[in-house]
Amino acid sequence: MEVEKVLPWEKVGNEKTVATSRHTSLTIQDFRNPFTGIVEDFHRYVQPDWSMILAITSDGRVISCRQYYQGVDLILQTIPGGNASFENEDPCDVAKRELAEETGYEAQEMIFLGIMPLSTRNSTTIASLFLALGCEEMIDAPLDECEFIETVYESLEGWILKSLTEIRDAPAREATYLALPWLRDRFGIDVHAILDLAFRKRMAKETAITSRSQ
Amino acid sequence: MEVEKVLPWEKVGNEKTVATSRHTSLTIQDFRNPFTGIVEDFHRYVQPDWSMILAITSDGRVISCRQYYQGVDLILQTIPGGNASFENEDPCDVAKRELAEETGYEAQEMIFLGIMPLSTRNSTTIASLFLALGCEEMIDAPLDECEFIETVYESLEGWILKSLTEIRDAPAREATYLALPWLRDRFGIDVHAILDLAFRKRMAKETAITSRSQ
Repeated sequence: MEVEKVLPWEKVGNEKTVATSRHTSLTIQDFRNPFTGIVEDFHRYVQPDWSMILAITSDGRVISCRQYYQGVDLILQTIPGGNASFENEDPCDVAKRELAEETGYEAQEMIFLGIMPLSTRNSTTIASLFLALGCEEMIDAPLDECEFIETVYESLEGWILKSLTEIRDAPAREATYLALPWLRDRFGIDVHAILDLAFRKRMAKETAITSRSQ
Repeated sequence: MEVEKVLPWEKVGNEKTVATSRHTSLTIQDFRNPFTGIVEDFHRYVQPDWSMILAITSDGRVISCRQYYQGVDLILQTIPGGNASFENEDPCDVAKRELAEETGYEAQEMIFLGIMPLSTRNSTTIASLFLALGCEEMIDAPLDECEFIETVYESLEGWILKSLTEIRDAPAREATYLALPWLRDRFGIDVHAILDLAFRKRMAKETAITSRSQ
């Protein structure tokens, strides 16, 4: 139904937890539809907020990671990131810790790119996306021994092209997109040339982003 | 732990449903870690796959929607989209139906942009992103009377700029990013000029994407 002006819905009562396990919950919250007055229940996934980092070394390479992901049952190339350790942990602190634990690097400059809701309809969880510039290897890196990560360095142009043709992880693509204004300002990246290359790869079907399998 | 080459994990046993309600489930699946041999359980959100559409009218305007989203408790501007009605429904059919139901438009050309996993670690659910070109109003549009949507038309350049500064819905941003190679090819969009404008808006803090509230 087309409406003149969309209205917020009112929360009715408290959020109820249907099931919870480790850091993951399924909850129910009632909302009143302002157009009909009817109360409807909505299910929401709740997990810790997290941060993801497009990290660029001081010599201009993107630090990417290959990992196995249980949700989609695929090995994917993505960017470093991870969950907050406690509620309301500063997203930038999460980003710095995860960058250190997953890659052993620290940044000279952290730029907050924006937020990315896990699912606007079905989750209260939010990712924060960062651009980390001037990354250098730490002397005593607090590497996390419980994660199994293959580090892959990419040229900046090569990574942007991959994000348009091969990368199937949403936050990695979004961080790259939202970072483009800075990448153009700082590194003078020729985005038009990369878009033209991506178009040719897409026309030639040299792409992974349209596939659900390896 | 840095590994030479990342390996897929083996699924052990079947997926078990912890809780389910309407179209939403929380499940558990065991996986064997190939590096340690230890079996670990992972929780996954399961909901219907869905499609989202960056739709452009035959006179070059983007058809966007404003709606209230219960997950993040915000009114957001995004693009048309919705869930598959049954398992393995063709994602392009879903896209065409949702475009018709939410906006009353049909496209002359549908381009599959790529997939977007809801959460690579925590969900089996996948969105399919489409670019719909040459959209025209249908004579007998099958509008869905159960959704409350405000339609907003944007210029193509204006929408791309918004996607970098104001749009907080991930699939809407991703569809816009993945469509850029086509938008440049078909409409000759000057992406560099938009990135420079976005950079100035970000520097001037004229942006919504860094905020969790209205």
